[in-house]
Amino acid sequence: MSRTVYLNGDYLPEAEAKVSIFDRGFLMADGVYEVTSVLGGKLIDFAGHAARLERSLSELDMRSPIGTGALLEVHRELVRLNDIDEGMIYLQITRGAPDDRDFVYPPEDTPPTIVLFTQNKPGLADSPAAKRGMKVISIPDERWGRRDIKTVQLLYPSMGKMMAKAAGKDDAWMVEDGAVTEGTSNNAYIVKDNTIITRNLGNEILHGITRAAVLRFAREAQMQVEERGFTIKEAQAADEAFITSASTFVMPVVEIDDATLGDGTPGPVARRLREIYLDESRKAAV
Amino acid sequence: MSRTVYLNGDYLPEAEAKVSIFDRGFLMADGVYEVTSVLGGKLIDFAGHAARLERSLSELDMRSPIGTGALLEVHRELVRLNDIDEGMIYLQITRGAPDDRDFVYPPEDTPPTIVLFTQNKPGLADSPAAKRGMKVISIPDERWGRRDIKTVQLLYPSMGKMMAKAAGKDDAWMVEDGAVTEGTSNNAYIVKDNTIITRNLGNEILHGITRAAVLRFAREAQMQVEERGFTIKEAQAADEAFITSASTFVMPVVEIDDATLGDGTPGPVARRLREIYLDESRKAAV
Repeated sequence: MSRTVYLNGDYLPEAEAKVSIFDRGFLMADGVYEVTSVLGGKLIDFAGHAARLERSLSELDMRSPIGTGALLEVHRELVRLNDIDEGMIYLQITRGAPDDRDFVYPPEDTPPTIVLFTQNKPGLADSPAAKRGMKVISIPDERWGRRDIKTVQLLYPSMGKMMAKAAGKDDAWMVEDGAVTEGTSNNAYIVKDNTIITRNLGNEILHGITRAAVLRFAREAQMQVEERGFTIKEAQAADEAFITSASTFVMPVVEIDDATLGDGTPGPVARRLREIYLDESRKAAV
Repeated sequence: MSRTVYLNGDYLPEAEAKVSIFDRGFLMADGVYEVTSVLGGKLIDFAGHAARLERSLSELDMRSPIGTGALLEVHRELVRLNDIDEGMIYLQITRGAPDDRDFVYPPEDTPPTIVLFTQNKPGLADSPAAKRGMKVISIPDERWGRRDIKTVQLLYPSMGKMMAKAAGKDDAWMVEDGAVTEGTSNNAYIVKDNTIITRNLGNEILHGITRAAVLRFAREAQMQVEERGFTIKEAQAADEAFITSASTFVMPVVEIDDATLGDGTPGPVARRLREIYLDESRKAAV
């Protein structure tokens, strides 16, 4: 069934949703994005994603074409039009389509491009992968330096996913200067002696909305949290590991570079945090 | 006047040239490009650009939608349709528009997207900037690790150009681990005691087509060439400096981070190389 998507103020069939070849998103990766999950037809962590979107735009001196209230309405209308119970809403804003290609930013009054579309994923919260656990490989982190800005420069993460696939695994953790930064589209965690360890915030990683929520829930549940870099060797010796992202929530990791963690099944901390995150997020969904 | 552009086999008015919002060029910067100059209605270094395009595609396991012979014909047809005497032809190929967004590459049979458009630049070879010389600032190189692949991940170079503009200068040279890599869209050179020094090839810089030609002409003219990294401090103490790119050819640099080189006018090596490059390129144009 054809989706209805949102493009620059219009709701239209996905096949008709096209942007100019001069769009700076297409020519220069000059755009930012967000992915918000939908559970029970409601939006998870919408306020967090909207706030991060504003920050991404601001860091790039990019104008927002829409306020947070109106953005929420567009999200809700897309959920309604596409009858989404579980799935995701993808949002992208670019610096728009000037008259010609130029490294210099276009005039201030160039309208930004805004596009949103849904991804219908029945069973998203009841993923078999969460019961089985993911296997990851490590790869060098070759991305640009400002990973805290959620830009569409996703070629390397995409290549990383393909490297994982070629190795028969599920995802790749990226390593820089000896320490894990994050997964291809998720934050990475290990658990050792009941302490949750995850990379500290900085320009080196995305400031995950799910990361912030999960760490808050962990601390509320009296779990110890350490925000610092860790090596692949340390991760392989951990009791368990997991990732978080808007669309996978909390997902256990059971193998890192061919080393099995614990008994090779999802660990209790990851399982518990997934449960808490899903419960609390459903309650707070809008 | 509206341009005629080329998109996936069709010649059409630029306002009608649109790509799907699901194009991986738009969503994931999963695309490569080339810019070829036109002088006297003929293409400069076309074979070099076509060869580098093939390499970029190959490094990304991306399929080429067109052979080199057919590509040459499209370039020539665009020159004819748009009556270009001096200017550029921009070419971009992406991994196409699959049915949905996914980090995993789309099925092999997904048609790549190919787009070409002209930029009419009368007086391109007789640029006033070449007589005046450019002023550059230095900025940290924050780009991804595979700059040898000419991808559309141009957000940081674009930001660099804006930083230069904000400083009242013309361009930015990027510095990594203490050494200059290259300019925002050009290779960087200094001249000291009649030796031309430019960054050695590697994943850290674009393998400039104009760079290769200029170094060949320099060696043929018995000039000394050293391919190695250099610092900003070394550059500021150089006798002269310049950049090369497909659209600026050889362009003198007269100031680096507020330090004036020599007497602040274009140096003799840069002027001579520009002359040789333009002469030889016009002769070899197709």
